[in-house]
Amino acid sequence: MSSSNNADKTATNQLWGGRFASGPAAIMEKINASIGFDKKLYRQDIAGSKAHAEMMTKQGVLKPEDNAAIQAGLDSVLQEIEEGRFEFKVAHEDIHMNVEARLSEIIGPAAGRLHTGRSRNDQVAVDLKLWLRDAIDQLIGDVKALQSILIRRAEEHADTVMPGFTHLQPAQPVTFGHHLLAYVEMLGRDRSRLADCRARLNESPLGAAALAGTPYPLDRHFSAKLLGFDKPTENSLDSVSDRDFAMEFLGLGAIMGVHLSRLAEEIVNWSSPAFGFVRVADAFSSGSSIMPQKRNPDAAELIRAKAGRTIGNLNSLLIVMKGLPLAYCKDMQDDKEPVFEAVETLSLSLAAMTGMFEGITINKDRMRGAAEAGFITATDLADWLVLDLGMPFRDAHHVTGRIVALAEAKGQRLDELTLEEMQSVHGAIHKGVFGVLTVEGSVARRTSYGGTSPTQVRDAITRAKARFL
Amino acid sequence: MSSSNNADKTATNQLWGGRFASGPAAIMEKINASIGFDKKLYRQDIAGSKAHAEMMTKQGVLKPEDNAAIQAGLDSVLQEIEEGRFEFKVAHEDIHMNVEARLSEIIGPAAGRLHTGRSRNDQVAVDLKLWLRDAIDQLIGDVKALQSILIRRAEEHADTVMPGFTHLQPAQPVTFGHHLLAYVEMLGRDRSRLADCRARLNESPLGAAALAGTPYPLDRHFSAKLLGFDKPTENSLDSVSDRDFAMEFLGLGAIMGVHLSRLAEEIVNWSSPAFGFVRVADAFSSGSSIMPQKRNPDAAELIRAKAGRTIGNLNSLLIVMKGLPLAYCKDMQDDKEPVFEAVETLSLSLAAMTGMFEGITINKDRMRGAAEAGFITATDLADWLVLDLGMPFRDAHHVTGRIVALAEAKGQRLDELTLEEMQSVHGAIHKGVFGVLTVEGSVARRTSYGGTSPTQVRDAITRAKARFL
Amino acid sequence: MSSSNNADKTATNQLWGGRFASGPAAIMEKINASIGFDKKLYRQDIAGSKAHAEMMTKQGVLKPEDNAAIQAGLDSVLQEIEEGRFEFKVAHEDIHMNVEARLSEIIGPAAGRLHTGRSRNDQVAVDLKLWLRDAIDQLIGDVKALQSILIRRAEEHADTVMPGFTHLQPAQPVTFGHHLLAYVEMLGRDRSRLADCRARLNESPLGAAALAGTPYPLDRHFSAKLLGFDKPTENSLDSVSDRDFAMEFLGLGAIMGVHLSRLAEEIVNWSSPAFGFVRVADAFSSGSSIMPQKRNPDAAELIRAKAGRTIGNLNSLLIVMKGLPLAYCKDMQDDKEPVFEAVETLSLSLAAMTGMFEGITINKDRMRGAAEAGFITATDLADWLVLDLGMPFRDAHHVTGRIVALAEAKGQRLDELTLEEMQSVHGAIHKGVFGVLTVEGSVARRTSYGGTSPTQVRDAITRAKARFL
Amino acid sequence: MSSSNNADKTATNQLWGGRFASGPAAIMEKINASIGFDKKLYRQDIAGSKAHAEMMTKQGVLKPEDNAAIQAGLDSVLQEIEEGRFEFKVAHEDIHMNVEARLSEIIGPAAGRLHTGRSRNDQVAVDLKLWLRDAIDQLIGDVKALQSILIRRAEEHADTVMPGFTHLQPAQPVTFGHHLLAYVEMLGRDRSRLADCRARLNESPLGAAALAGTPYPLDRHFSAKLLGFDKPTENSLDSVSDRDFAMEFLGLGAIMGVHLSRLAEEIVNWSSPAFGFVRVADAFSSGSSIMPQKRNPDAAELIRAKAGRTIGNLNSLLIVMKGLPLAYCKDMQDDKEPVFEAVETLSLSLAAMTGMFEGITINKDRMRGAAEAGFITATDLADWLVLDLGMPFRDAHHVTGRIVALAEAKGQRLDELTLEEMQSVHGAIHKGVFGVLTVEGSVARRTSYGGTSPTQVRDAITRAKARFL
Repeated sequence: MSSSNNADKTATNQLWGGRFASGPAAIMEKINASIGFDKKLYRQDIAGSKAHAEMMTKQGVLKPEDNAAIQAGLDSVLQEIEEGRFEFKVAHEDIHMNVEARLSEIIGPAAGRLHTGRSRNDQVAVDLKLWLRDAIDQLIGDVKALQSILIRRAEEHADTVMPGFTHLQPAQPVTFGHHLLAYVEMLGRDRSRLADCRARLNESPLGAAALAGTPYPLDRHFSAKLLGFDKPTENSLDSVSDRDFAMEFLGLGAIMGVHLSRLAEEIVNWSSPAFGFVRVADAFSSGSSIMPQKRNPDAAELIRAKAGRTIGNLNSLLIVMKGLPLAYCKDMQDDKEPVFEAVETLSLSLAAMTGMFEGITINKDRMRGAAEAGFITATDLADWLVLDLGMPFRDAHHVTGRIVALAEAKGQRLDELTLEEMQSVHGAIHKGVFGVLTVEGSVARRTSYGGTSPTQVRDAITRAKARFL
Repeated sequence: MSSSNNADKTATNQLWGGRFASGPAAIMEKINASIGFDKKLYRQDIAGSKAHAEMMTKQGVLKPEDNAAIQAGLDSVLQEIEEGRFEFKVAHEDIHMNVEARLSEIIGPAAGRLHTGRSRNDQVAVDLKLWLRDAIDQLIGDVKALQSILIRRAEEHADTVMPGFTHLQPAQPVTFGHHLLAYVEMLGRDRSRLADCRARLNESPLGAAALAGTPYPLDRHFSAKLLGFDKPTENSLDSVSDRDFAMEFLGLGAIMGVHLSRLAEEIVNWSSPAFGFVRVADAFSSGSSIMPQKRNPDAAELIRAKAGRTIGNLNSLLIVMKGLPLAYCKDMQDDKEPVFEAVETLSLSLAAMTGMFEGITINKDRMRGAAEAGFITATDLADWLVLDLGMPFRDAHHVTGRIVALAEAKGQRLDELTLEEMQSVHGAIHKGVFGVLTVEGSVARRTSYGGTSPTQVRDAITRAKARFL
Repeated sequence: MSSSNNADKTATNQLWGGRFASGPAAIMEKINASIGFDKKLYRQDIAGSKAHAEMMTKQGVLKPEDNAAIQAGLDSVLQEIEEGRFEFKVAHEDIHMNVEARLSEIIGPAAGRLHTGRSRNDQVAVDLKLWLRDAIDQLIGDVKALQSILIRRAEEHADTVMPGFTHLQPAQPVTFGHHLLAYVEMLGRDRSRLADCRARLNESPLGAAALAGTPYPLDRHFSAKLLGFDKPTENSLDSVSDRDFAMEFLGLGAIMGVHLSRLAEEIVNWSSPAFGFVRVADAFSSGSSIMPQKRNPDAAELIRAKAGRTIGNLNSLLIVMKGLPLAYCKDMQDDKEPVFEAVETLSLSLAAMTGMFEGITINKDRMRGAAEAGFITATDLADWLVLDLGMPFRDAHHVTGRIVALAEAKGQRLDELTLEEMQSVHGAIHKGVFGVLTVEGSVARRTSYGGTSPTQVRDAITRAKARFL
Repeated sequence: MSSSNNADKTATNQLWGGRFASGPAAIMEKINASIGFDKKLYRQDIAGSKAHAEMMTKQGVLKPEDNAAIQAGLDSVLQEIEEGRFEFKVAHEDIHMNVEARLSEIIGPAAGRLHTGRSRNDQVAVDLKLWLRDAIDQLIGDVKALQSILIRRAEEHADTVMPGFTHLQPAQPVTFGHHLLAYVEMLGRDRSRLADCRARLNESPLGAAALAGTPYPLDRHFSAKLLGFDKPTENSLDSVSDRDFAMEFLGLGAIMGVHLSRLAEEIVNWSSPAFGFVRVADAFSSGSSIMPQKRNPDAAELIRAKAGRTIGNLNSLLIVMKGLPLAYCKDMQDDKEPVFEAVETLSLSLAAMTGMFEGITINKDRMRGAAEAGFITATDLADWLVLDLGMPFRDAHHVTGRIVALAEAKGQRLDELTLEEMQSVHGAIHKGVFGVLTVEGSVARRTSYGGTSPTQVRDAITRAKARFL
């Protein structure tokens, strides 16, 4: 009944590698071949080759007729791949060799000339940079889509009062719109970091060759331009041993993952009956057929978990690169999976979060109810005593404490006390005080720049639209 | 020419999620469905279900005829999967639902009864524990295979002298056999940790149900026994929210990955012409057709890199679990990929390392030559002055310094000085000193327990065989 | 007004190192000296030296009178340190040299003989192992103290009903005692891992010398025994380059940190007015003088955060060790701070958690109220229909769904429906059903081994006391 | 003899917390007080308070005479701290309270008014941002200093030939100057990331107050300007819960640590007798008095190790922040130590690396000798056949292989073959070939932009000086 069969295992392990009965070749293919994941780079690999051939032709190294054959052949390969007709072969190890081998079948010996003045070391650096550049453009769009829906919801809820928490304890009333805009800011910094990363990576390694540059009369500026790079990289050794762009991306991706995990945690909390602030649409939650109230915020929990995965990916690459001597080492082949996974994870998390906010239902009553508990406007009372009565801060604090004690003794909210009751603590208090004791009064007064008052929130929304949408 | 097409991208991003044109359902399926990776658990899932049904039948909850149908049906499902005839469906989300749905097709309503007294929460915990238990057994075999070849090589090289390094500087002569046995010890601790992890995880969560236990008259001890578990877990909430076994495994796997990375680094160093100590077989290296000396130790570099991946996996899961409230949260679905990847990575790294040591060629001359440089037996000389001449340690050190200076001035090794030359520094030195000045003499004298002398190494090999093979 | 003064900075930076105006020596002392942290090892360092001297005397290498001087001198040094009279000097770099230099001042040349047959490489390995062994013993005590208070609280609350959560949604009623016992299990595994780590590390590196063993006639078994080690290590190279014990400890410490972070998260949640389940004593929370209800669970939040620190420490050491060639490399000096920090962090977190549970106040009413919401006993109803009426599972599920719909329509709990109302859905239902519809009825029936019924919880407490206290 | 005394320990552990005999207060103080590390922020804290007071005075909230007292009082506190006369008290928990308490002693009740319109939540965010901004400015200077010495060395060694490695195997000759410039590029990106991080963080949280903004008529733009911030932050909730700047800094710091670890690994390799390329000055290495050749590159090894520490710090903070709900949580107090440690570690590593390159000795002969081995100019020969003889690439490759085989058979370098011998393989080869067969000839021809030819290296140095110095 046990699923394990130790006897068998011992037997196979007498041969090393057990599962690798066919011997060293099978193990090496398994650990060495990257085509299983780097085939994602096909479009970039072909674009890089086309640019290299164009440049080499312009420089007189490649004959125009060879170039024509190469361009047409590469277009065919691209089409085959995009139409699902291409057979990727593990024997060809990686995407570069797979494309080259097929090109060779299609156009013959001219394919071999494509390798002049280039090496797999600069080729793979070009491919991964181009791929990541595209991915960053995509992610910027994904982030923008999430900002867009958050701003829309913020606009709808510029006046919706909820408790602002510190330590998960209600601290002061805020508006739900204001709360959502905090995430719009975080995502704005994420976009800014994506843009910086894109700008910094946008230098072409093409022409660095294996590591030392080449004696061929390359025009690296020209091929850089063809590929949309700002310029060629400055140092050939650095060009093939640099994976900063991938590490930097994973670093900013980890921060973005953390941001999303924070919003996800809040959705999990808010969806719990204990809070009851929001209801995630059926499409993004699961439930129980016999417990209709039970709505598991599965998507939010998965987004929260994904931060772990992305931080793991960041670690993987930093550790791979730590202590590597120049120039290219095979260790660097393990740069791709962490990057691919992080892009996939972030893009999916952003889409799921956007989807959730499309269909989310807000329970204003529960939010407002939670905001009213706990003498949450005590700070407002103290501030009012200072600002409107000119009381010294320390005295204002003392008076507030006594009024709160009174309300607590009576089991009432602050705004339920009578003026007389408050005057019994301090005679100068007048009816103007009621303007700050309600949660609406409280938020309305927090008009400092970037504060939670509905007017500030609406101004912030206007600015956010201009900055981000 | 650019591989990126921003115009298109902007367009699709106007719909949130772009690539998820079909809307929320497509996103949710993508983020939520685990069948893509958890189908690896099929054997364990079926074994768990069979045990549960047996137990429920013994307890009178299931009818024998239903049980018979379930057992036969599950056997059929297993066979279908193993023969590649089973169609895994994303719509069924995970391995449990895929198996159950197919069972239902095969045996009808009786399939539904399998769910009595069980939940997906305890089921997935059982599956992953069983899978990991099998994987640990497999890995123990893989480690043993590597220890076996290392011990074999150590036996062949019990007398082969090489420099022992500190700070990558030759410090004292050691034997290559002794050096390899250091890794046998590391791997021995890895096995010990694997065994501890296996023992600790071997408690059955089956019967914890969703989180609280069940009112059905389960015999959890019986189903535990059927599955080879030592006993049932003690607390139902813990049973479904515990992923210690996975974290512990990833922790020990990270340490094992570090061990392998150290040996891999040494192979990279030793393969470099700068050292020239070893030659990795063609099967595990790559080269250049026009530079026959260039032999890139690709497999070693990849093993070195993999430590990064495994540490990344460890982080992923620790971070997923950090701060999760009880009992089951969907975040925990992200426990599997890190574990699966780590097992695959470690198993492959062990096989590749074993394969490399099968076909490795040792260059004794280069090893010995490197060991002889740098007055490496100076410590032996000082020890001899203390032990054989009874000189105080401080004086011995002083005399040694002067003799080394003499040799350095003459451009000779210590064992190339004449007795007279040495006596010119200290008259009591006699010809016995030559017994410790050669690298062979040096290693021969290091007979403390676990020391590098060939006799100690041979004793250690005898013990290692008894302990590990 | 700016706190930064760039002009100054530029000036100092014209000399490299700016703040290191005194040049290379100051930088090197700063990066190289470890006495700032490794002085923690003083007791272990002295114990190791005393054992080494005893053994060398027994073996006839050290003269009894020298040994007597060494033993007395080391006792003096120990006393000076413990009485705060010892001056640690950065110029002496590390604890070993500080102790040795002082010993030399006290007893003269005999101090030098202590170095015979030993090296700083085996010495530091001994010291750190001894220190960690003590720390593990201490931590086992700390864990036990926390288990003890959790078991005490579990005993008091074996009948206290609260919602059992999945996805932070109430899923089934459980008892608070049962919930606490889940953590007792986690902590039990932590203790088990601590014990395994202690057992595995308990081999003496003393006598491995620099890396190769020594020609002196050591009795490594004897010195191992004097220091409480089970035996000497097997391989001298491994002895000085092994830091498995530290990595293993940090790995299990990270898991323990995750456990504590989970309980901490729950305390943060439970302390929030949204849940209102517990009240942390004033000593472990902070508040606002004017908002008496606001009680920030500071200690719980800090414990939750500390998991991050410990995982960071684990990473630090794994990364330091990754790819290091044998034998000793200076990188390994960075093994101590992560270990020291992790021990301090864990010990403090355990003490704070224990302190919180000493003074915690449980609000049974809020727990019970939350448990009653959401038709939480629907599963119990379905199980009753199967078990007591013999209804097929599928039918039971259908009937339950209809009864829940009825209750929902009436705005009542399931146990508030009349028998007639339930019989209107299925005629066979009899008054026995009420035994499972209340939360007390629900938990009482979950009597499977390790389940949440108060009888099971009391049995589990009895076992837990025997296993852990 | 054992350093552990379990009996005692058990006794103290009967009281929880053992070492915390004074009970909860001692534990809480220990886990909660941050003054032990956040006192580093004193200058920033005082600058922030001064700016707040100025702004509040301009806005008419503070009276000019109170402001005057506050400004003078804060200046006194600053002076006391800088002169070492200030007594930091744990009872005052953090730097803010320590400063405030002392200010209160000095100027009396006016000190209390400083708290108007501000909270510890925005105050600590301001302090840490200002501190990090200063640290970044400092680090940029440190990086520049290292670039400066590397460029100087590159200039001296623009013609010094060494092997360019891939897989630690000599692949093509490069110049040492070119190799060093690769690190200048990496460090240039590090500076660029530091600058981006500085620009992004330079928004003032001051005035966000506890979390919601305040009703006081703040001029946040004015206080921002006083503190050198570009503008105030946009959202008050985000302002107090954002630690992006710290995470981003740790991310870029981890990458910088990785860069330094790579250069450190190379120094360790190059210092090994196996390579013998460089000699680190005595000040940065350690040795053995009796083995003059043994020079341990301690500083390089420690720099290599520090990458682990910084990656650990990055992880710590990412994990602390993961899943934290808004706004301020106490967990965030653990943001400071990772940042402080990383700054200290990086600054020290940069200074040590700079110091090492100040005093490093280059062994050109060993470099050149290593570059000449292994038919390293085979690629040059093939390229020459293509470029100068117009041979198809495939044929050129074939001819090269045969010539290499000839040289190998004769035990000679390629440039030691006679013209006749080469012509025996292919008749069209003429004496021009010798221009590419030597290592000098090889590097001279690699003139593609960013290539290793001395002319390119000199151009690159000119550009590097303009870009970085």
